[in-house]
Amino acid sequence: MSDPASGPVDALATMNQLLEQTIPRAHQMGVTFVELRPGYVRAEVPFEGNGNHFGVVYAGVIFTLAEVLGGALHYATFDVSTHYPLVRSLNIEFLAPGKGALSASATIAEAEIERIRAAAVNGKVPFELVAEVVGEDGTLVARTRGDYQIRPYGT
Amino acid sequence: MSDPASGPVDALATMNQLLEQTIPRAHQMGVTFVELRPGYVRAEVPFEGNGNHFGVVYAGVIFTLAEVLGGALHYATFDVSTHYPLVRSLNIEFLAPGKGALSASATIAEAEIERIRAAAVNGKVPFELVAEVVGEDGTLVARTRGDYQIRPYGT
Repeated sequence: MSDPASGPVDALATMNQLLEQTIPRAHQMGVTFVELRPGYVRAEVPFEGNGNHFGVVYAGVIFTLAEVLGGALHYATFDVSTHYPLVRSLNIEFLAPGKGALSASATIAEAEIERIRAAAVNGKVPFELVAEVVGEDGTLVARTRGDYQIRPYGT
Repeated sequence: MSDPASGPVDALATMNQLLEQTIPRAHQMGVTFVELRPGYVRAEVPFEGNGNHFGVVYAGVIFTLAEVLGGALHYATFDVSTHYPLVRSLNIEFLAPGKGALSASATIAEAEIERIRAAAVNGKVPFELVAEVVGEDGTLVARTRGDYQIRPYGT
């Protein structure tokens, strides 16, 4: 098809297939990428199957929803033929109960993308990624701050 | 049975049943409590089904293995008829690849238990819990530092 939207749609479908293959547990939770472009990613997770005894989404599911954004952003933004992403540490704040389906998004600013691309030529590049997890009504449920790296293959 | 071990064994079995009922996703990963007494808990998770594309245990599984320790410690240490536990924030450092089955443990020192018990009479009590996740050969795979609270029911 020559639909102008076919590029992003294909990237999303590919990323969701990749998630199923590479992190089966995240796929099993129902984590799905819904928006993906260089520097921006958003994923969703349903409530069903992911609740706890408080009737809210379990902390480990919220962590996973936010954590997988790093790999998807790498895929959409950097050169996957030469570098892979890695999470070194991550801080997660639980700010409000996660009622119902949740959505998480993360952004890397254009200047930061350029910095990382330039530095990646010489090896490992650390970067910080902040993700926000919101409920269907926009309530800020959690915020994560992760220390990621992109690394050349073989390192 | 009058086996002197029946007390701890029963507490463990109860805690594992509770995990299945309260956090089905953690149970689904195969997270199992293997040691539990006031001030100390240890849980394990198998590799099978929990790996990622790097052939190591996925970060979200490691987070979950460490995070559930807080609730179990609460169950084994504090008064579950009056207070419930809550995680406010958690920092996780990924220190080495998690190859094979993993084990996570956490301790609350006796003096800290006494402090929390005394303060809990008056309401919410924050406490920090550090957990270590190790591989079968003792390799330190991850360390978490969580800000938990115990809270009286109704707060």
